[in-house]
Amino acid sequence: MMSENNSGETMQFTTSDERISTLLKRVQETTDLLKLEALASWDQHTQMPERAGEARMHQVATLDGIIHERQSDPALGKLLQELEGVVSQSRFTDADRSLVRHARRSYDQATKLPPELVEERAKVAVASLESWVKARQNNDFASFAPWLQRTVHLQREIADRLGYTETRFDALIDLHDPGLTASEVEALFVPIRDVSTRLLKRIQASGKTIDTACLFGNFPISQQEALCKKMAASVGYDFTRGMIASSAHPFMIDFGTPLDVRFTVRYSEQFLPMALMAALHEGGHALYEQGSAPSLLRTPLAGGASSGIHESQSRLWENVIGRSEPFWQKKFALVQEAFPQHFAEVPLPTFVQALNKVEPSLIRVEADEVTYNLHIMVRFELEKVLVNGEISVESLPRLWNEKYREYLGIEPENDTVGVLQDMHWSDGFGGFQGYTIGNICAAQIFKKLQSEFPDLKERLAGGDTSFILQWLSEHMYSIGATYLPQDLMVRLTGESMNPNYLLSYLTGKFEKIYDLSPES
Amino acid sequence: MMSENNSGETMQFTTSDERISTLLKRVQETTDLLKLEALASWDQHTQMPERAGEARMHQVATLDGIIHERQSDPALGKLLQELEGVVSQSRFTDADRSLVRHARRSYDQATKLPPELVEERAKVAVASLESWVKARQNNDFASFAPWLQRTVHLQREIADRLGYTETRFDALIDLHDPGLTASEVEALFVPIRDVSTRLLKRIQASGKTIDTACLFGNFPISQQEALCKKMAASVGYDFTRGMIASSAHPFMIDFGTPLDVRFTVRYSEQFLPMALMAALHEGGHALYEQGSAPSLLRTPLAGGASSGIHESQSRLWENVIGRSEPFWQKKFALVQEAFPQHFAEVPLPTFVQALNKVEPSLIRVEADEVTYNLHIMVRFELEKVLVNGEISVESLPRLWNEKYREYLGIEPENDTVGVLQDMHWSDGFGGFQGYTIGNICAAQIFKKLQSEFPDLKERLAGGDTSFILQWLSEHMYSIGATYLPQDLMVRLTGESMNPNYLLSYLTGKFEKIYDLSPES
Repeated sequence: MMSENNSGETMQFTTSDERISTLLKRVQETTDLLKLEALASWDQHTQMPERAGEARMHQVATLDGIIHERQSDPALGKLLQELEGVVSQSRFTDADRSLVRHARRSYDQATKLPPELVEERAKVAVASLESWVKARQNNDFASFAPWLQRTVHLQREIADRLGYTETRFDALIDLHDPGLTASEVEALFVPIRDVSTRLLKRIQASGKTIDTACLFGNFPISQQEALCKKMAASVGYDFTRGMIASSAHPFMIDFGTPLDVRFTVRYSEQFLPMALMAALHEGGHALYEQGSAPSLLRTPLAGGASSGIHESQSRLWENVIGRSEPFWQKKFALVQEAFPQHFAEVPLPTFVQALNKVEPSLIRVEADEVTYNLHIMVRFELEKVLVNGEISVESLPRLWNEKYREYLGIEPENDTVGVLQDMHWSDGFGGFQGYTIGNICAAQIFKKLQSEFPDLKERLAGGDTSFILQWLSEHMYSIGATYLPQDLMVRLTGESMNPNYLLSYLTGKFEKIYDLSPES
Repeated sequence: MMSENNSGETMQFTTSDERISTLLKRVQETTDLLKLEALASWDQHTQMPERAGEARMHQVATLDGIIHERQSDPALGKLLQELEGVVSQSRFTDADRSLVRHARRSYDQATKLPPELVEERAKVAVASLESWVKARQNNDFASFAPWLQRTVHLQREIADRLGYTETRFDALIDLHDPGLTASEVEALFVPIRDVSTRLLKRIQASGKTIDTACLFGNFPISQQEALCKKMAASVGYDFTRGMIASSAHPFMIDFGTPLDVRFTVRYSEQFLPMALMAALHEGGHALYEQGSAPSLLRTPLAGGASSGIHESQSRLWENVIGRSEPFWQKKFALVQEAFPQHFAEVPLPTFVQALNKVEPSLIRVEADEVTYNLHIMVRFELEKVLVNGEISVESLPRLWNEKYREYLGIEPENDTVGVLQDMHWSDGFGGFQGYTIGNICAAQIFKKLQSEFPDLKERLAGGDTSFILQWLSEHMYSIGATYLPQDLMVRLTGESMNPNYLLSYLTGKFEKIYDLSPES
């Protein structure tokens, strides 16, 4: 179901204005090309033959060049300047204003960063990734450090050229989460860090352990594929506008939101949640995209408002909804039908508890809801001081380990499972905060859903999620990236991002699961 | 295995010449974009969600516009003119000359056909295809006739604008089989038509019938997939530079020959040859592309010399080799291993005979080797007089049926299985002859292989095809589309296309299969 409007407000462009229609045509064509580039990437990650890389590299480079030429066209700059002088007038729509904002953003990025810098950044990213792969294999941070140093220099130059008001790191954050600064993010994060660390200690002190044995077994992939399809369909993912494939790292991608939104999962034959929960996670991203108003097709307004806001929807569907007992009340039957021998005798609470086991680990991507944000804190805090020049690259392993001990109570025995675990830093900085912003917004939006639907829990337990999708589609998904993240949160929930909802959610949920007495 | 050269002759461009290197860069970039367009088409035919069409249409249209702009750039025209004045000099290579020829061809097509004509042609093709689908369903040629009439007009206009020396139809043939004219094709076809008609009558008079029951059964698709992969690999298809998918109509496509060459087959759970022989047919096309010299990557020289020459390789591997008893001597074991219950008791000769049953039918795509060319004759002869204005659209059903009676001895009971059976005419004319030219060249090239390898039959029977692939790669595949079809045939076999090899091949093969006494 595609919602055409947002509370009666249509997402339409004022094409009667010649400047808007000219801009729209330019943006649509550039979007077409970006989607073909996305298709090349999808192919590469899901099926491309191993030796096709050289041909593909040239194809993408050629297309990239054409896209850059179009995004940095001086005629576009002139048009934007003209429109910026008038677009606040009431005869223009929010969609018009957003179109101008998005085009300005990509124009600035395309013109402020010289081609040589963009090229060097791309080359360093490739070489740095190669170095990281080896360094991780050999537990040899020192061999990766020079590449990390070059990345730091390049990222600083990028920040300087893009500009910022407070600190350099703000410019990098803005690339992922527009409108947020490092100090704003920090204000959101500090209470989460403190409460999560405390909650973890209480859970550990409780003495209660959760048995996850029921999640392990022998799960043939073809049956998992069918189950993932059923689960995605059951929460409203539309297969006439999408498909699921498999890849080494799960991701969602679109080739024209809302008409073609696909995602991948990764299968483990031994551990069911790897694919099953990825289907809900990536499926959540995909529901967001499939809900964009059709009028936004071929524009950057179709899709998510930011990395963090996008992540709020994967987290909402995977965790807040998808790891709750009411959700599985009916849907556990799908799992049991897929693997009757394995799950016939497993009681529902055992399954749900296993999905929610809290255990501090060294690896972010395997973390539970309580410790996950602590992994993000470590990265965010280190990125910030690294980019802003307050620490050296060489000090990273030591600081990483210290923070793990402080926040999670454990310490990596080597850098391979420590500072070298994520590939992200071979590419750049400023993206990690989005994961926790996603958790913050997911809890805040879920709170809003609870107040809209007082019987939400009962309806979930009845196997229904369509009312949630419908509300989100109407109020959030349909308007896509029209508004900046904070403005969107105010429109949706009445206030800007507030960490308290996540804190209450985590505390309430895990106090119950671990039989903790509430703190005064 | 990729052959770097052709009998010691390297396929290299003279990049030390600035004009060649400028042309090469232009051609490479345009090729990159064409390959991304091919990727969009592959996705569309193999996996694209059903409602994604609108988004994809825009993406392809935008890319098309960019490609057209580049192919018709006046600066390119000027560069070509300059190069055409000097490229025959001995300091340039055959690759240089071919590069200029290919670029001239696409420049002429892009500049001689006005954009409105190209657009109208595309629109009429879409509407005409829709009309054809309905007309075929309803056995209603009259409803399709007006679209066919518009297509005839458009094709004539295209022919007039592209130019020709003898007849309009030549210009359309040249789009598929460069350098051939209708009268040359006719000279090749008449003996084939006459001998095939006679051979068919002799087979029918022989009284011998072939039982094809062993080809029918219950063949689960996943096992067929594995078998097709094994068969393709066993003739040398390189999966590190390719993959097999499934689609409604099998096709081969490349995204950068020779590095990424894929194909599709279509599976029937009841009839094994549908996918198995398609794997050899499309696999044959793919072997040709995978054999191109790496130096030709990102140019139109990588790949096949023409439709007909390309078809010669699918026919060679599918029919001349793939329907011969020596070929199956060892490889039948693969089929038996895939479906042991079904094939354990089937003797090899029964299987091979079944693959070669001759039976006049109304449907081209299901035809055997003897009658196949007769189906082509009907279409070629009708296209020719239609385009050249000698018959009316309205007379097509009557003439179609008359020719079927005359050549194949059977007559369609309605137009659905008659004149309406192929979708091709909704798109245009001038492509059908390639299938029979493929058969002619396959037999001629096989004759050359037999003289190169006197023990060819024994080596085939030993399960080896690699010596054939190696010879073809070195002498034919590696040079790609460097030479025009007739020149290529002379280089390969010592003479231009000659129908006698196909006639001897068909007569010899089917006299044996049907126990016919040789005619004096």
